[in-house]
Amino acid sequence: MYPHSLTDLLYYKIMNKTYILESRPVGAPTTENFKLTDTELRDLQDGEVLLKALYISVDPYMRGRMSDAKSYVAPYEIGKPIVGGVVAEVVESRSSLYPKGAVVIGGLPWQQYSIHSGQGLHRVDPDVAPLSYYLGILGMPGQTAYFGLLHIGKPKAGETVVVSGAAGAVGTVVGQLAKLKGCRVVGVAGSDEKVAYLKDQLGFDEAINYKTTPDLNAAMAQACPNGVDVYFDNVGGPISDAVLLFINKFARIAICGQIAYYNNTAPATGMRVEPILLKKSALMKGFIVSDFASEFGTATKELATWVREGKLQYQETVKEGFEQLPEAFLGLFTGDNTGKLLVKVADLGS
Amino acid sequence: MYPHSLTDLLYYKIMNKTYILESRPVGAPTTENFKLTDTELRDLQDGEVLLKALYISVDPYMRGRMSDAKSYVAPYEIGKPIVGGVVAEVVESRSSLYPKGAVVIGGLPWQQYSIHSGQGLHRVDPDVAPLSYYLGILGMPGQTAYFGLLHIGKPKAGETVVVSGAAGAVGTVVGQLAKLKGCRVVGVAGSDEKVAYLKDQLGFDEAINYKTTPDLNAAMAQACPNGVDVYFDNVGGPISDAVLLFINKFARIAICGQIAYYNNTAPATGMRVEPILLKKSALMKGFIVSDFASEFGTATKELATWVREGKLQYQETVKEGFEQLPEAFLGLFTGDNTGKLLVKVADLGS
Repeated sequence: MYPHSLTDLLYYKIMNKTYILESRPVGAPTTENFKLTDTELRDLQDGEVLLKALYISVDPYMRGRMSDAKSYVAPYEIGKPIVGGVVAEVVESRSSLYPKGAVVIGGLPWQQYSIHSGQGLHRVDPDVAPLSYYLGILGMPGQTAYFGLLHIGKPKAGETVVVSGAAGAVGTVVGQLAKLKGCRVVGVAGSDEKVAYLKDQLGFDEAINYKTTPDLNAAMAQACPNGVDVYFDNVGGPISDAVLLFINKFARIAICGQIAYYNNTAPATGMRVEPILLKKSALMKGFIVSDFASEFGTATKELATWVREGKLQYQETVKEGFEQLPEAFLGLFTGDNTGKLLVKVADLGS
Repeated sequence: MYPHSLTDLLYYKIMNKTYILESRPVGAPTTENFKLTDTELRDLQDGEVLLKALYISVDPYMRGRMSDAKSYVAPYEIGKPIVGGVVAEVVESRSSLYPKGAVVIGGLPWQQYSIHSGQGLHRVDPDVAPLSYYLGILGMPGQTAYFGLLHIGKPKAGETVVVSGAAGAVGTVVGQLAKLKGCRVVGVAGSDEKVAYLKDQLGFDEAINYKTTPDLNAAMAQACPNGVDVYFDNVGGPISDAVLLFINKFARIAICGQIAYYNNTAPATGMRVEPILLKKSALMKGFIVSDFASEFGTATKELATWVREGKLQYQETVKEGFEQLPEAFLGLFTGDNTGKLLVKVADLGS
């Protein structure tokens, strides 16, 4: 089908930038942990596709993979590329799975180009939504919000739902889904800008700036006069402790992220939650989006419908250029992003 | 129906011992917190029954009610009787609910005699099982084990179930139910005698004496070579921390008691469980037996069948005499009981 000898010749000249894991962070990650390499691409073989990265996602869970501690996903290897969510274009194909021009999403290396078997990728449709949305509201973060809130939190109309990390890629969807379900929604975020965005743009009933409020417990009491029925926890730490003081009987707590502890070098200690769960007959459940893999199709369809109907708003912070990746990732831990943070590497069809 | 003037005359002469809450414990309770009074019974009125206590239960949850902190059950009032599970005989009745001679169970004061409307009591059958069993394996502790293990833990054949407080009234039933379900069962208890009882009499696969084992984590690793799928937690504290280090993906943890903290004067702190729940997509759920009130009938019937068939063994420690109540209660916190601890106050029909 393809003039192999010609494309092989072309590949030979492609130089390919890659970010590899140079060292494991101790405490907070730094740019020193990443190393940029620039190598020639090898020839494409039968059964392979050549992928060009269009959008690369940076997500808090990746911090866990930079450590060698056993976690819910395997650690990255030193000297090997960082791997994460990527939307990519098939620029050459010697596979029957995807033709040239197809756009796919999957767990791919932080590379401008990658050679892949095509297995485990999913095709996405540029006509349904902007391609970057598949790394956000229609992808891992959106689905994380969907399953954690609806399958674990199970909010009922009239209940109070609190979400921490509320202005992030997951939190913004959690809050809007809870509003769709008829709940009172309270967000916790880290700047006045974010608080204003949550209340004015996304319709949250209340939002608390945890960095400036003089008394988090008092702020929580005021924001949740009827207590807390569902808590979607992206952060852990003192914010979660404050929320847990106000949970109602039979509350449900979805543990989605514990960013407060990702940079810890020893097991975290703090307030014991078990006595509270006992007193309140409350449920706490950790999860990762892949626990719900069999239901991804349903979730994507439902989320896409709500986005098209304008019922779910979506905000991205897009950094431009492959070499922005380390800085973009580090930004996750300094709280300077609103909405989904990702890096645009190339235009479709460019 | 009754010669009221005569019975009234008789009542007049009944002296009635009662234990009242003299003071709230700070830290561990002592006998000083209880006061014995001896007062005359008032006349029985229409619609009332006179109950004579036969067996009185002492249970760990009662420690919580001695504090004035808001908990899952209302606190006892200073100067008022302690209230708990009691099996009692109706010795006189001016109520249509229960005839003289009926035996009932309910939440009743620590009194030799009490006058009651009959509301909220349940009749028990002395022919189905020894009366004391209704305070144990067929009553609150047995039902607690039943619902916590089967409705929250949901053990599957071949899984590993760990229970702390394993030799107690709840723990002994949890372990035996888990064996009935085909699980590997590991108990944690506080003496070599208890460990031997769990393994030799109740068929636990392993049991750990947490007071003498030099390394709890190592003991847990050895007892649970395939990790922990279900943890039924009666105690909290370092024992639970050790168990949680070994939980498997999708583990279920039923929080039934947190006796490690009942005598705390400040909110408990310690190892954070949220990061572990997240990594393992694990569920943790607090509960109290009354959460399952609508299913008590089913549970009692099933438990009684297993007891009759010899599939569930049951052990009690029965102290004799009303005035043993405070010491019996304090014994719960020093770990000197095996099986259900209760006090026999009088014989049926005496």
